[in-house]
Amino acid sequence: MYCVDLNSDLGESFGRYTLGMDDKVIPLISSANVACGYHASDPVVMERTVAMAKEAGVRVGAHPGFPDLMGFGRRNMSVTPGEAKSYVLYQLGALYGFCRARGIQLQHVKPHGALYNMAARDYQLSRGICEGIKEFDPNLIVLALSGGQLARAAMDMGLPTAQEVFADRGYEEDGTLVDRRKEGAMITDEELAIRRVVRMVKEKKVTAVTGKDITIKADSVCVHGDGAQALAFVEKIRQAFAREGIEIRPLAALDL
Amino acid sequence: MYCVDLNSDLGESFGRYTLGMDDKVIPLISSANVACGYHASDPVVMERTVAMAKEAGVRVGAHPGFPDLMGFGRRNMSVTPGEAKSYVLYQLGALYGFCRARGIQLQHVKPHGALYNMAARDYQLSRGICEGIKEFDPNLIVLALSGGQLARAAMDMGLPTAQEVFADRGYEEDGTLVDRRKEGAMITDEELAIRRVVRMVKEKKVTAVTGKDITIKADSVCVHGDGAQALAFVEKIRQAFAREGIEIRPLAALDL
Amino acid sequence: MYCVDLNSDLGESFGRYTLGMDDKVIPLISSANVACGYHASDPVVMERTVAMAKEAGVRVGAHPGFPDLMGFGRRNMSVTPGEAKSYVLYQLGALYGFCRARGIQLQHVKPHGALYNMAARDYQLSRGICEGIKEFDPNLIVLALSGGQLARAAMDMGLPTAQEVFADRGYEEDGTLVDRRKEGAMITDEELAIRRVVRMVKEKKVTAVTGKDITIKADSVCVHGDGAQALAFVEKIRQAFAREGIEIRPLAALDL
Amino acid sequence: MYCVDLNSDLGESFGRYTLGMDDKVIPLISSANVACGYHASDPVVMERTVAMAKEAGVRVGAHPGFPDLMGFGRRNMSVTPGEAKSYVLYQLGALYGFCRARGIQLQHVKPHGALYNMAARDYQLSRGICEGIKEFDPNLIVLALSGGQLARAAMDMGLPTAQEVFADRGYEEDGTLVDRRKEGAMITDEELAIRRVVRMVKEKKVTAVTGKDITIKADSVCVHGDGAQALAFVEKIRQAFAREGIEIRPLAALDL
Repeated sequence: MYCVDLNSDLGESFGRYTLGMDDKVIPLISSANVACGYHASDPVVMERTVAMAKEAGVRVGAHPGFPDLMGFGRRNMSVTPGEAKSYVLYQLGALYGFCRARGIQLQHVKPHGALYNMAARDYQLSRGICEGIKEFDPNLIVLALSGGQLARAAMDMGLPTAQEVFADRGYEEDGTLVDRRKEGAMITDEELAIRRVVRMVKEKKVTAVTGKDITIKADSVCVHGDGAQALAFVEKIRQAFAREGIEIRPLAALDL
Repeated sequence: MYCVDLNSDLGESFGRYTLGMDDKVIPLISSANVACGYHASDPVVMERTVAMAKEAGVRVGAHPGFPDLMGFGRRNMSVTPGEAKSYVLYQLGALYGFCRARGIQLQHVKPHGALYNMAARDYQLSRGICEGIKEFDPNLIVLALSGGQLARAAMDMGLPTAQEVFADRGYEEDGTLVDRRKEGAMITDEELAIRRVVRMVKEKKVTAVTGKDITIKADSVCVHGDGAQALAFVEKIRQAFAREGIEIRPLAALDL
Repeated sequence: MYCVDLNSDLGESFGRYTLGMDDKVIPLISSANVACGYHASDPVVMERTVAMAKEAGVRVGAHPGFPDLMGFGRRNMSVTPGEAKSYVLYQLGALYGFCRARGIQLQHVKPHGALYNMAARDYQLSRGICEGIKEFDPNLIVLALSGGQLARAAMDMGLPTAQEVFADRGYEEDGTLVDRRKEGAMITDEELAIRRVVRMVKEKKVTAVTGKDITIKADSVCVHGDGAQALAFVEKIRQAFAREGIEIRPLAALDL
Repeated sequence: MYCVDLNSDLGESFGRYTLGMDDKVIPLISSANVACGYHASDPVVMERTVAMAKEAGVRVGAHPGFPDLMGFGRRNMSVTPGEAKSYVLYQLGALYGFCRARGIQLQHVKPHGALYNMAARDYQLSRGICEGIKEFDPNLIVLALSGGQLARAAMDMGLPTAQEVFADRGYEEDGTLVDRRKEGAMITDEELAIRRVVRMVKEKKVTAVTGKDITIKADSVCVHGDGAQALAFVEKIRQAFAREGIEIRPLAALDL
């Protein structure tokens, strides 16, 4: 039997600003990446999001990002590995506070945006991030781009590691995502996207933008809840998984 | 035998900005209130401060404040009790992250600045703060102005509560601090200040600004490390305590 | 003939967060209060909003608030009059930068949220605000709650002053707004609200929550663009003004 | 006769945090780069700094930086040229507000830290910065690394441009500064540093780290006021300039 996790970013609202349709996407996923107040979210939003995840039986992970609310954590910042470690520990602890208050466990950590992308390419930065995670709790699962440097650093450091794939993104031959500014970056044909993600889960293969098949590990699929179309697409993925005998399970229930 | 805790605010630097002489004051105290990134501090400073406290054998507490870095958390903000609860949980968890990474326990929570002063007068706000603390860990000690509403709320909610006094401040008959804008707010005569604090510890009495003696509970004395004179004053308090048979012990070692 | 300004808060989006339907409300108003990056907005949003206002021929004013993005500037903060002055000057200048770049004039200043409400009750705070405005440009119009302390301070300091009324709010006998937590705070009957605002403009009278008629000056009416219903209500106000021979003109074209 | 400007970064304090010895360095320089609230400073500090510069007869320029207070604007951020333009306009306008309130003119703009360094290497980013400056006031002087891309963009766009040199830094053959992590980055011998800067001003030449002489334009020398040694070094530079017949003049009095 095949198993896979469905993860989505949640709790990205801030103060008077609302973002995402958290209540709509939460019943469709198995793991929630909750923003921690640096690139998005605030303590009131975090408390509400953790409560909502508990209610829905969805597992919670920390989604730490750069201290760049204005840029939503999507802009590269030249932080040192040591700074990254401290920033991750801070945000991890902050989210843990709300989990502990609600009596639920923290399942995983997935860096956000530019921190995620930089870590995927930078082994030393990834080690900094992983040190923060490991010092806090060596049983936390690191959720990282499949085949990237963060996954490598996490495994090197003995942390449980889950590799993440994207249904709607093109891949280079080396397993990295095609740059958003290049052709082939987005898979816009939904049927194709679904066939690709099913194949990644069942065969551990995907066709790169060059036409060549590459090997890829798919422990978790990243989905979005920021619009009606995105939500409909998640439903289609779920239906395809059901048809194909792929069971959706949270990261902690996978054999990583 | 008499026992009392000496506490001081630490870890108030931020990025390129240095504040306080943490390395000088830390050997002189028994409990450190560490800023948590809202009114002061950042993750790098917090990590360093927790390490320094562990090294010195000083117990660590969270020092949560208002999200007002520009005003150093010293300006009243009309937050709701629910917001205060979330803000405390967030900051508490963030500092806990660094303590856990270093393998030390979190001992106490003392609100900072305007949050401390508002809580001392506002029972509902104090309940909000205490709910955040209790949901995180009902064994955390609440460090509050002696006789104030925060101490009352903490005790009502069954939390271990330590009452704090100030050597250098005048008291009103009702046990509140004399407003800084009024005469008698500051005790500038150091010898008098030391006699007063010794009496608070040993006799549980202090002479109010009106001349009348009032009852006061002194589990902990707040001291400062932001200058050479402040440090010298802490030394004098320590010498007086030694002379008077008053032992300095962290909050967790007191019989609260 | 009767004239009145219609003003609305604009440019309250921030980074990835969108707020308000600026493009929908802008054709309906004569003066736009543009947020300046403290309680809302960022430089990219401000630049876009100023461009949009210029395009629509709507006059632009600064809408300075407290440095409290998390609370959207709606929480009281105990700043000094001197701090308020500096904060207003900073935000005023920042918005002026975008106006000058676009070749348009800054017309007015209206404080936001808690700063607006605190100023309406606090003459000294209002003087601080007005000093910042006056030092920058004594021809800027101060847009203030009708009959409040900010209007009084502005007039005392010789600044052009426009008094603002609300169609959907109840008034106390002394001209202050009924507290939102009390009965009678909101006028929910739209027809009644419109009759009230027409009367304020034409007769300078409104019926207070006590039933007594009071005198009120209505140079400008505050409207909202944050939803379909709010926009429909602005249309109704405009139609009523057309029927009643009340012309909508920006503050600078009024005889203040 | 030779003329040169001496510039220094001022107004970098923030809230309760003090940085720099502004009162000590201000009598020694001709142009002050005043931080604008993004990487450092706040409205109260800016108001005080502008007043101090006026009092000392020193010319004022804006010193805009990245929105990264935690990193003091020293960390690269991947902003677009459009974002850089908006950020510069915002900060420029904000500082202009205080200048206008004090009745002084804004003389120049010098980007701070990582924005300065990135602009020196990135022509498109530099054009974004210069667009913000030009739209605000095409007479503002751009103060940029001698020979860098910001200087080039500013001249291409017809803005008055001043080229800046560093007494205490090594140069590569292409005129860029030697990376701080490499040998030869810092000129620690003060006498040598002073001879080098005098030569840059008088002969437009400096010896690169490779030993080869290169051409360099020195309209302004950057000095620091963050310690007793730094201040003493500025005094030495001033004495050398006096001896060598080099007159210190603000940028606006130079023949750029």
